[in-house]
Amino acid sequence: MTPPLSIDAARFLGRLGSLARIGRDAQGRLTRLAASDADRAGRDALAAWMREAGLEVMVDRIGNLIGLWRPGGRDGAPVMMGSHIDTVIDAGAYDGCTGVLAGLAVVETMRAAGREPARPLAVAAFTNEEGVRYAPDMLGSLVAAGGLAVEEALATVGTDGTILGEELARIGYAGPHEPGFLRPHAYVELHVEQGPVLEREGIAIGAVEDLQGISWQEVTIAGAANHAGTTPMAMRRDAGVAAAQVVTWLRERARAGNGRSVATVGRLRLEPDAINVIPARAVFTVDLRDPDAARLSALEADFAARLAAVARAEQVTATVRRLARFDPVAFDPGIVRAIEAAAGARGLSTRRMTSGAGHDAQMMARICPAAMIFVPSIGGISHNPRERTADADLVAGANVLLDVVVRLSGADPASPSAGAGA
Amino acid sequence: MTPPLSIDAARFLGRLGSLARIGRDAQGRLTRLAASDADRAGRDALAAWMREAGLEVMVDRIGNLIGLWRPGGRDGAPVMMGSHIDTVIDAGAYDGCTGVLAGLAVVETMRAAGREPARPLAVAAFTNEEGVRYAPDMLGSLVAAGGLAVEEALATVGTDGTILGEELARIGYAGPHEPGFLRPHAYVELHVEQGPVLEREGIAIGAVEDLQGISWQEVTIAGAANHAGTTPMAMRRDAGVAAAQVVTWLRERARAGNGRSVATVGRLRLEPDAINVIPARAVFTVDLRDPDAARLSALEADFAARLAAVARAEQVTATVRRLARFDPVAFDPGIVRAIEAAAGARGLSTRRMTSGAGHDAQMMARICPAAMIFVPSIGGISHNPRERTADADLVAGANVLLDVVVRLSGADPASPSAGAGA
Repeated sequence: MTPPLSIDAARFLGRLGSLARIGRDAQGRLTRLAASDADRAGRDALAAWMREAGLEVMVDRIGNLIGLWRPGGRDGAPVMMGSHIDTVIDAGAYDGCTGVLAGLAVVETMRAAGREPARPLAVAAFTNEEGVRYAPDMLGSLVAAGGLAVEEALATVGTDGTILGEELARIGYAGPHEPGFLRPHAYVELHVEQGPVLEREGIAIGAVEDLQGISWQEVTIAGAANHAGTTPMAMRRDAGVAAAQVVTWLRERARAGNGRSVATVGRLRLEPDAINVIPARAVFTVDLRDPDAARLSALEADFAARLAAVARAEQVTATVRRLARFDPVAFDPGIVRAIEAAAGARGLSTRRMTSGAGHDAQMMARICPAAMIFVPSIGGISHNPRERTADADLVAGANVLLDVVVRLSGADPASPSAGAGA
Repeated sequence: MTPPLSIDAARFLGRLGSLARIGRDAQGRLTRLAASDADRAGRDALAAWMREAGLEVMVDRIGNLIGLWRPGGRDGAPVMMGSHIDTVIDAGAYDGCTGVLAGLAVVETMRAAGREPARPLAVAAFTNEEGVRYAPDMLGSLVAAGGLAVEEALATVGTDGTILGEELARIGYAGPHEPGFLRPHAYVELHVEQGPVLEREGIAIGAVEDLQGISWQEVTIAGAANHAGTTPMAMRRDAGVAAAQVVTWLRERARAGNGRSVATVGRLRLEPDAINVIPARAVFTVDLRDPDAARLSALEADFAARLAAVARAEQVTATVRRLARFDPVAFDPGIVRAIEAAAGARGLSTRRMTSGAGHDAQMMARICPAAMIFVPSIGGISHNPRERTADADLVAGANVLLDVVVRLSGADPASPSAGAGA
């Protein structure tokens, strides 16, 4: 049996550090919004590294940047790795960049070792994954997966009034290829967890088997403002009390499930917001997530029923505005098993898990077998300059990605016909 | 038996309308803040009406404006009526002014009928009852009752940076008399209810037997911000959920009592206030009121215990800042009975009740027997241009005040020795 390959850790970590220096402001804050000048600089660095690694660099019309390795000019559906290099405002160094640079390291490692795969390998950096400048998030992968027409996507107006298509052209990343021109054989994305589970459980590798569905709603409860001193409890129509009942119920309902549902009320405001006036209005957001479509729908239905019951009991009215809705995604069981097997073979602890955040992998899962590898986020912190993953965990994740891609691409001499699927 | 007197309804209501036109802005909003130009204009009108009625007009150092009737130059402790004519911003016409102008009507009615009382009668308009421009509220009556030194009160800096003493001098109402120079034999204040009880129960006259104690606190709950998607329910330290539990408990605790406690959370904000971030902080106000001192203290103690228990259970911290605390006030039972008797004799329905708001009467209760008469507020609305009390209810209240003052001042031939006290 061929000895296992390993990526060049110093080069991988060095590039991660280099990329994290691109897009710093005068205060040292990292902000590399999609299709900005900082994004151009990041893309330029990535493209240069891809070319150094011997990849063909290709850009599609929505700006997705792809490095392709066709060993011996081989055609066919590639095994694709990737993620994104755009960031939130005042971001950390790991979100997205880890997956892109690990993919590049995988290709370099296989090339250097002469382990030619049976199919092409691709490394993708998708446009506007964060969704900070242009909505929706995961826009580049969504378009590549056929979920949004490219013309519509290019016409997107940003929070700063810019048009995405114009900005992509301006920075030189409005490419000639039709989005989706490469339909992958399989897609694997390495990403930092952005949550606390792996670190708390002391586990090195998460084999991500599914991704939560998300339901975002804004609830407005309307009661009646009245004097806090002169209005007896029995005569009140207190919008704040009604909202509080919904918040406490929601937490119990999410807890009572099988541990997979999460429910969060992150925003809440009262009107008129005076110490001695009974709240006339409460406006709050409800973020519901579950990896199972039926369970998410049941959670939504139970919430709607409870809200109506509280409104009746408290003599208030409740209106709901839907802000967003994404169905859950189930990743490919065969790739998930391959991730577990690769981690196990390297002596790394592993667990199956659910992604609580959205990722490009969920869009690619629409068109090919896909899964994700998670590595621990220290303190669960993300979208924050304090975002961090230990170097050893980053390298371990990249090596698991390597092993899985070796297997999926038919470069593994021990199992030449291995591929995606159960 | 002498036939009952009645006030001149047209004159009383006409003056109420005239006073409500003083202090209107270009948009027609009524704002007559303490010691402002509008307040001066209102005071000038009131003082003129007092002089027309044959009263001596006196002003003390804190600006309390008092009209005194000494029949035949009689000395001794006066029976005092009164309230205030300063208003909140964008106010209604009835709050305060009703009690002052009804007092004036009572004196005029007795004079016109030749019903000379055995002791002087006084009508007081106290300075800065509303507390909008200068803190604390009920400032003029507090100083008159000896609860705050006049020098300290005069040095109060307003929300607009002005100094109360300077403003009183500027508008010509920094008088020569020491506050408290008139120690009343008894004090009776007619006021609109500012709550919904009388209207909902179809009752004309409230005999106010006590005034709620008030406890104001600001609570800050600190948990931990985290990703709403990736943080399992069991790993959360959600400040918003903890706050919601406290809000719902507080309502149930206030309800479970004997119907006299009220509890209100009027302000609440979450941080960082993002739809997909678990709240790290919740800051909210707690307004507790009860007419019984022991019950109010018990409510505060139970609240503190519950807050601590929630903080432990939710792994958050809770800190409390006290904003205000006033003990409950019990009014004089003899005057309360006199109010009930007067209403009954006029065929007016009546009930005993508690004042949920603060009033000048609570300060005067520190130095003499005192009580209040409430008349219905339509919809319970107050501190609002929509504040209203039906004309018939205003007149009925003024006539009950008349009857009670006739009795307390020894002007009632049927009970010449009647006075305050049980």
